[in-house]
Amino acid sequence: MPDFQPTDPVNRRVVLQSRPHGEPATTNFRLETAPVPQVNEGEVLRRTLYLSLDPYMRGRMSEAASYASPAPLNQPMVGATVSQVVQSRNSAFDVGDYIVGYDGWQDYGVSDGGGLRKLNPADGPLSYALGVLGMPGLTAYAALLDIGKPQAGETVVVSAAAGAVGSVVGQIAKIKGCRAVGLAGTDAKCRFVTGTLGFDACINYRDGSLAEALQAACPQGIDIYFDNVAGEILEAVLGQINLGARIPLVGLISQYNAAKLPPGPNLMPLLVRRALIQGFLVGDHVSRQEAFRADMTNWLQTGQVIYQEQIVEGLENAPEAFLGLFTGQNTGKLLVRVSPDPHC
Amino acid sequence: MPDFQPTDPVNRRVVLQSRPHGEPATTNFRLETAPVPQVNEGEVLRRTLYLSLDPYMRGRMSEAASYASPAPLNQPMVGATVSQVVQSRNSAFDVGDYIVGYDGWQDYGVSDGGGLRKLNPADGPLSYALGVLGMPGLTAYAALLDIGKPQAGETVVVSAAAGAVGSVVGQIAKIKGCRAVGLAGTDAKCRFVTGTLGFDACINYRDGSLAEALQAACPQGIDIYFDNVAGEILEAVLGQINLGARIPLVGLISQYNAAKLPPGPNLMPLLVRRALIQGFLVGDHVSRQEAFRADMTNWLQTGQVIYQEQIVEGLENAPEAFLGLFTGQNTGKLLVRVSPDPHC
Repeated sequence: MPDFQPTDPVNRRVVLQSRPHGEPATTNFRLETAPVPQVNEGEVLRRTLYLSLDPYMRGRMSEAASYASPAPLNQPMVGATVSQVVQSRNSAFDVGDYIVGYDGWQDYGVSDGGGLRKLNPADGPLSYALGVLGMPGLTAYAALLDIGKPQAGETVVVSAAAGAVGSVVGQIAKIKGCRAVGLAGTDAKCRFVTGTLGFDACINYRDGSLAEALQAACPQGIDIYFDNVAGEILEAVLGQINLGARIPLVGLISQYNAAKLPPGPNLMPLLVRRALIQGFLVGDHVSRQEAFRADMTNWLQTGQVIYQEQIVEGLENAPEAFLGLFTGQNTGKLLVRVSPDPHC
Repeated sequence: MPDFQPTDPVNRRVVLQSRPHGEPATTNFRLETAPVPQVNEGEVLRRTLYLSLDPYMRGRMSEAASYASPAPLNQPMVGATVSQVVQSRNSAFDVGDYIVGYDGWQDYGVSDGGGLRKLNPADGPLSYALGVLGMPGLTAYAALLDIGKPQAGETVVVSAAAGAVGSVVGQIAKIKGCRAVGLAGTDAKCRFVTGTLGFDACINYRDGSLAEALQAACPQGIDIYFDNVAGEILEAVLGQINLGARIPLVGLISQYNAAKLPPGPNLMPLLVRRALIQGFLVGDHVSRQEAFRADMTNWLQTGQVIYQEQIVEGLENAPEAFLGLFTGQNTGKLLVRVSPDPHC
């Protein structure tokens, strides 16, 4: 195919002009024009058809460390794109090829072709590569299936249920035989979530008591909470989770625009660092008793574990000794000697 | 062995007299006496040698639902005990046997023998069955190894490091080739933790900036945080976790005595329900691309997944459309059409 000559030789670009403090504004961006980039040997030039807009971009606007470096000022804002090749000096790409890439907020992108994936228009709408068949779809799929591990009959709650990720999460939950309950911010969205998408229920979280609405919508409790927002909704959900619940933490939209973080542990580092918090009760781990006793007995004998006790004399002193646990009075294991130990 | 006749025919017991609101006090308990229990056919009577005192008991004093039912009022406070059989009408137990059980805060316990485990005094001090070889030891072992999954060279931070569980956690971390950093509330405890127990470092969390001290003690960041306390220490640790960090949530001592919970998500249900929160970034899950695209393409074709887009026309409208993501303006996937799609 012959090289395509852009009919409009201008590359419009929306650049990041300033970084927001708190809520972003249109004044953080600037529309400008630049020449269409030159195509050097090995490079491929494409024209943007679709630009994806996603909440994660808020993080890139800030200077604060996130899971990716901040978008540079006075450069086109970053973003995923579907585009068409208009000029190629790279044998891997032909003029006319459809591409999903990361060209950002501009008319034209140029590069050596790294990170580009060709799209076959016969597979469906090109734009799906930015959504249900792209990053948001994979997010819904992998976070729900690999962290959430849904089992038939379980209840899956998802926040931002009318959004690109949440809308897919609930539908996959249904496919896996679960009860799907969405959370959204308007009644119209809730109608979309239940009526069009087929969730079992949807709660307008701005409407009345969220805890009560969750209880009504999740009579068997909550087994999986797919969290796109964190904050108060997470708090309410935690109150109704079932034994062994799983919570993929995928977004914290509720705090992206906060100039000052709400009090309490900020869970953003959990997401950024793909870390895990898991509740532990020793009663679930009796199967480890035998290995534990064998290892620990050995470690005590070899001196690899040193063990110190603090023994209070007399049952009558138990209450006061117990209170000291909460004011840092003891070092090592606190015990009460109730009657004499024949071996000691 | 002939039946043992208690020399003192009185059973002293510390009963739970009232439930605390906020901080517990000695007045929540009452020392009283009762007759030594009768031993019916099939039962075994033992005299308490050691009573274990543990932070979890604070939860049993409250009426609020926790991972176990509340301790009943005017009954001996619950607790694990090491005891000796003094009278037996159960063929499985002989007078003189040493036992670990759950007889609570009293001189004598009687039962049909269920839940009792015999101790061999040749194996070491009897009291160890309540600590390093008992529940606190198993807690340290299973939560660190099975949730924390320590790898040689990693950094393990543990709170309440001078306590029954924390003191063992750091020593197992050392055995597994990790750097062990403790947190404790006095300089004397810190000296115990590094000097006697052999941790690499210990921070007095009451002394100066915890964030700075953590940075100095954990130059490679934090891979595992064994959390006994939650609250502000968890908050500070989260700021310094490494990629893929693991946080066994084993206790929330910092809030056990709080009459009013601090703001922000209360993580107690995570512990009580043994649930999991895990951060997710799609970039880590590219290995799922192929399975995802195959499944999703199929689900779209069969109509099991419905997909809706909201397409804004024109690059110049991208900033305003983007801002709408945070004010709930869109339903479905938000896109900008930058130039005409030849397939649409």
